[in-house]
Amino acid sequence: MKAARYYGKEDVRIEQIPEPTVRPGQIKIAPSFVGLCGTDLHEYLGGPNFCPTSQHPVTSETIPVTLGHEFSGVVKDIGPGVTGFKIGQACAVQPTIFCGHCPACEGGAENVCHHGGFIGLSGGGGGLSEAVCVSATHVFPLPDGLELETGALVEPLSVAWHAVSAAPEVTHDSIVLVIGGGPIGLAIILCLKAKGVRTIILSEIAASRQNFARQFGATQVVNLINDDVTKIVIDLSNGRGADAAFDCAGAPASIKSACSAVKARGTVINVAIWEKEIPFNPNWVTGKESIFKSVLGYQKEDFEAVIENLRTGAIKPNGMITAKIKFENVVQDGIKRLISDRDNHVKILVDVNAK
Amino acid sequence: MKAARYYGKEDVRIEQIPEPTVRPGQIKIAPSFVGLCGTDLHEYLGGPNFCPTSQHPVTSETIPVTLGHEFSGVVKDIGPGVTGFKIGQACAVQPTIFCGHCPACEGGAENVCHHGGFIGLSGGGGGLSEAVCVSATHVFPLPDGLELETGALVEPLSVAWHAVSAAPEVTHDSIVLVIGGGPIGLAIILCLKAKGVRTIILSEIAASRQNFARQFGATQVVNLINDDVTKIVIDLSNGRGADAAFDCAGAPASIKSACSAVKARGTVINVAIWEKEIPFNPNWVTGKESIFKSVLGYQKEDFEAVIENLRTGAIKPNGMITAKIKFENVVQDGIKRLISDRDNHVKILVDVNAK
Repeated sequence: MKAARYYGKEDVRIEQIPEPTVRPGQIKIAPSFVGLCGTDLHEYLGGPNFCPTSQHPVTSETIPVTLGHEFSGVVKDIGPGVTGFKIGQACAVQPTIFCGHCPACEGGAENVCHHGGFIGLSGGGGGLSEAVCVSATHVFPLPDGLELETGALVEPLSVAWHAVSAAPEVTHDSIVLVIGGGPIGLAIILCLKAKGVRTIILSEIAASRQNFARQFGATQVVNLINDDVTKIVIDLSNGRGADAAFDCAGAPASIKSACSAVKARGTVINVAIWEKEIPFNPNWVTGKESIFKSVLGYQKEDFEAVIENLRTGAIKPNGMITAKIKFENVVQDGIKRLISDRDNHVKILVDVNAK
Repeated sequence: MKAARYYGKEDVRIEQIPEPTVRPGQIKIAPSFVGLCGTDLHEYLGGPNFCPTSQHPVTSETIPVTLGHEFSGVVKDIGPGVTGFKIGQACAVQPTIFCGHCPACEGGAENVCHHGGFIGLSGGGGGLSEAVCVSATHVFPLPDGLELETGALVEPLSVAWHAVSAAPEVTHDSIVLVIGGGPIGLAIILCLKAKGVRTIILSEIAASRQNFARQFGATQVVNLINDDVTKIVIDLSNGRGADAAFDCAGAPASIKSACSAVKARGTVINVAIWEKEIPFNPNWVTGKESIFKSVLGYQKEDFEAVIENLRTGAIKPNGMITAKIKFENVVQDGIKRLISDRDNHVKILVDVNAK
């Protein structure tokens, strides 16, 4: 079968590899649509980071590995012991790889498994192929009426849903600041809207991303460079500050803004992956006893919630897909386009079956 | 009356000032014992920090201000409208100053009042005097059998109790790391013991403070310089990590240790006040989704809990008092001794009435 495989920095090859065979407890998925994300870009531009250069403790694989961790597909084969699925069924896949026996897994936190990873990055196959075998527990049937291309958005939306769930105190009346209007910041806006939050302030520099944010439901868009974000948030909240602030930018200025704009006992949620140490003063949160949380990935419940909110129409993801490309063009029209024209795209989907 | 007043850096004077008059809702306290703390030292060595150089928004005072925010005393006068107290009654005082009408106060978080401060630092009198008038709501009668000198420990113990309360998930079976064996780190050990926590690891460099920690109930004492604190904690917890880690040292190495030693979804609690920005990588908590909290001061409930735990004997504070000095000698025998011989003292009390 064909597969897009990561060999190292700036080296992704489309190759023919053997099709995997389904094992007990697994389902073989024929991927339909695969989203490209910032992590793929980081691997391409500066990796390997996630992709294993020594044997991965769960998958036992090293590079080359098949890419593609945001994907939908149809059931192609069902392994022994699996019930409740049928061939041809449309599904989204939670690509979490976990060991199942470390203290984090034993505590129910498989998203922070000590040895964890992702299908499509850590081995175990990936969405950018004609078939991938995954644990049936991580396959989520798409409800009738939910298109396969929307199914490929379930993964990034689950990252956002998981982040928003880290601030359970957020209600309809909350004032929420989102810093950074990239795909995850925008997905967080969609999830906040789905939860009925009425005041969502986005801080973003790029005009095109500001426009996406307005379209997706941000009630106010500010620019960290020209605007005093903290003052705007404080004024909007009658002096109180934001109930929660999501840092999806991951820059020294964004973490400081998030901390200074949040209210007493409010929550700052870091959703970014950082490249290096940055200047931080714990006093930024001490004087207000605000809480700094940092989230990673998602859990099964996030996938379930996102699919249910897509089904009801509470999450409106249509504007997220800004391009659909052919499998063969994944590097040129996908990865390289995200590098050169990042701000004009939210989600580029690879249509695995397009001729 | 006599009062020890702060004029600025290295300038504390014992003076005669008018005795204050009790207003409605207030109680006049004749201080008995007053603890000296790190904040007093910071004011003396590098202040003014807390002490107001322009009019304080609540007390309307500027320096000079009377020092002393950790104190017990006896009721000397009772203001109009106050019931439930009697002259001569032994009390501890919660020195919180708050405005009562900012969003934090309205949200019940008066310890992080936007305009807050402390009696004994921000104006409104202080314990290092013969009389101070405070709101009756912040006066806590000491139960029979609780000595006035122990009453002066209620404030620092409440700081510790408040910090420990930020990790409500800590139980008897938890493994807790405390970094820094100064007075607050040691008080946190006492509070953890009172809550029945069986495994308390203290990281501290100074041998004298290590000894205090063992005496106060630390089950293991490690030295950040010689020992791999993270490895010790991970090993002790069967690979899991500490359930909670308290950073009472406030150094770049301590925050990094706390983050690396804590378990997946564990809590890091910063109890230190920092002087400047430090290198921090949010990834230290992201990969585990651990929560970074930072606490400040205390609430009424903390004072009540500490007094109750002192009454029952669950908190055993006796070793905390390492010297009692005369009022007149507060600078020489108190502040300067804490500077020169810091590691050999936990709490130096000023005996206001000693001749």
